Amino acid sequence: MTFTTPAWGARTADTPLEPITIQRREALATDVRIKVEYCGICHSDVHTARDEWDGTAYPCVPGHEVLGIAVAVGPEVTKFKAGDRVGIGCLVSSCGACDACEAGLEQYCETGWTGTYNSSDPYGTDSHTHGGYSGEIVVDERFVLRIPDGLDPAAAAPILCAGITLYSPLKHLAVGPGSKIAILGFGGLGAMGVKLAKALGAEVTVITRTEVKAADALKAGADHVLVSSDAAQMNTAERGFEAIFSTIPRTHDMAPYLQLLKNDGCYVILGAVEPMQTPFHGATLMGRRISIVGSLIGGIPETQEVLDFCAEHGIASDVQVVGVDGINAAYDHIAAGDPGFRYVIDMSTI
Amino acid sequence: MTFTTPAWGARTADTPLEPITIQRREALATDVRIKVEYCGICHSDVHTARDEWDGTAYPCVPGHEVLGIAVAVGPEVTKFKAGDRVGIGCLVSSCGACDACEAGLEQYCETGWTGTYNSSDPYGTDSHTHGGYSGEIVVDERFVLRIPDGLDPAAAAPILCAGITLYSPLKHLAVGPGSKIAILGFGGLGAMGVKLAKALGAEVTVITRTEVKAADALKAGADHVLVSSDAAQMNTAERGFEAIFSTIPRTHDMAPYLQLLKNDGCYVILGAVEPMQTPFHGATLMGRRISIVGSLIGGIPETQEVLDFCAEHGIASDVQVVGVDGINAAYDHIAAGDPGFRYVIDMSTI
Repeated sequence: MTFTTPAWGARTADTPLEPITIQRREALATDVRIKVEYCGICHSDVHTARDEWDGTAYPCVPGHEVLGIAVAVGPEVTKFKAGDRVGIGCLVSSCGACDACEAGLEQYCETGWTGTYNSSDPYGTDSHTHGGYSGEIVVDERFVLRIPDGLDPAAAAPILCAGITLYSPLKHLAVGPGSKIAILGFGGLGAMGVKLAKALGAEVTVITRTEVKAADALKAGADHVLVSSDAAQMNTAERGFEAIFSTIPRTHDMAPYLQLLKNDGCYVILGAVEPMQTPFHGATLMGRRISIVGSLIGGIPETQEVLDFCAEHGIASDVQVVGVDGINAAYDHIAAGDPGFRYVIDMSTI
Repeated sequence: MTFTTPAWGARTADTPLEPITIQRREALATDVRIKVEYCGICHSDVHTARDEWDGTAYPCVPGHEVLGIAVAVGPEVTKFKAGDRVGIGCLVSSCGACDACEAGLEQYCETGWTGTYNSSDPYGTDSHTHGGYSGEIVVDERFVLRIPDGLDPAAAAPILCAGITLYSPLKHLAVGPGSKIAILGFGGLGAMGVKLAKALGAEVTVITRTEVKAADALKAGADHVLVSSDAAQMNTAERGFEAIFSTIPRTHDMAPYLQLLKNDGCYVILGAVEPMQTPFHGATLMGRRISIVGSLIGGIPETQEVLDFCAEHGIASDVQVVGVDGINAAYDHIAAGDPGFRYVIDMSTI
């Protein structure tokens, strides 16, 4: 039992996104059917629509910062009712039985999770899942988030990916009052990182390539900035960070940043889903017991936690709302270098 | 005030070690003067004597697994007296004032520690420090270890470097009963790693290139072995280790091993003081929150702890004792591929 819903998607890696029609399943017993209000545009959407990470199935309907209103719920749904404002992040299914799932770390599901888009569809509605650039979406309640009152719906959408991507490692590394950390890169992820880390009580430095972004970062609340293209600044910078959260969305050379970490410091890779550039020197890590770690979005309980945390602390993404006809221009802008705000699509324009 | 003592050292990167005479300072107020009984041969000695890591100052007298008898102590020495059996590891000085030194992590001293050999000599006795391939050595009591009764002196020497190099990260990662870990490489470090990890209660797999070493590892007490040159074994191996301790003494490709780690698993670089080979893929770390960390020997309190732990658990290195005239042959053997035992020089042969 399926229904059709309008969407915007890419038919090939080389063509712009355009209107298409997709199939959704009718709500099953534990499903929530959602009318999408807003969908954030993540850099991953651009990578995937353009097949920059390989493996994109077409037509590709991106979108994993999905916010909307529950319009119907299956008979066994207990947590939501029609009329609730809800969100969908990057995950729509996982095994539910492995150690990771049982710990609420569905993003590390040992048998593999189902992405909101471009994953094999376990329900068989289509060959692959379709994301939030669509009129409606149907998701099992286990992967549906409650949007707290008081969060502006458009500005809340990016919390579902950009927000949780920073919040999860910040919490995992116990960043809090007294912590001295750096956010590397000041695009959509970096801007959320500054707000979350500040709200957690840390002293925050933004490392960015340009003076313009450095000024933006200070305006956004960063305590300090470091312009990475300025060799003098980089060479004289204190090696004082306990963690550097790298939001750089592409392969990069970690060496200039590793030297800024203190003993037991940690370099966290959040966005570079590519082979890293110049290999680091073993002695760099050995000399100060430095670690390099990866972190991927966050699990469902932690995603609910960051939504509640943002509502409590008045945190939202800086967004620019566009209609569906603004998607392709936004993609070009993001590909040219992440802006320090998030594009969010007003899905009522579909 | 100095005295001379006989030693064996390299005069250039390309010549074998040979007898030379070096200067030592007379014992200062807090110094212990030690007659060397045994000195282990570490792979680092070979790297340094042959200038494989660059920066070797000649003549180079290696040796940082030094075991002997205190023959005199300065008037302010409180922990040792003449006649005590004592040891010197990789460090002979550090600032003593930074956070790392105050935490007993002198190996991460923020202003730089002094190595037992090939470091700038803070006492000015010579341009650089000279190690334990010598008749006597003089060291501040802060860097002198007590050798517990019951440890065989020759077999205890390698604990001062090989032992602590494994013990420190095993303890740092809280390896104990229930832990499932791998030791990568079965040379001098790997063999100590198996004994220490087993004594700590872990389930231990040795990963090694050859069937011969795999058999040796099982004899040494490993629970399982994995032959890394056997693609079938590597491909079907469970991704189940919480940590892999890499004792590989050269640059290497981490990718085949990273895939054997479970969620939150950690790859520990212990021996590769070189730029790592093929860069890893960011997604490998992100997909399971895997980390890569370096670890360097250990601090003085932890070195005393591992000596006491080895005495308590009856752990010693498997050693082959050679005279000074056997040093060069041992170097060639080690350079050809770490044997699963440690060469130890009987310094009474000097």
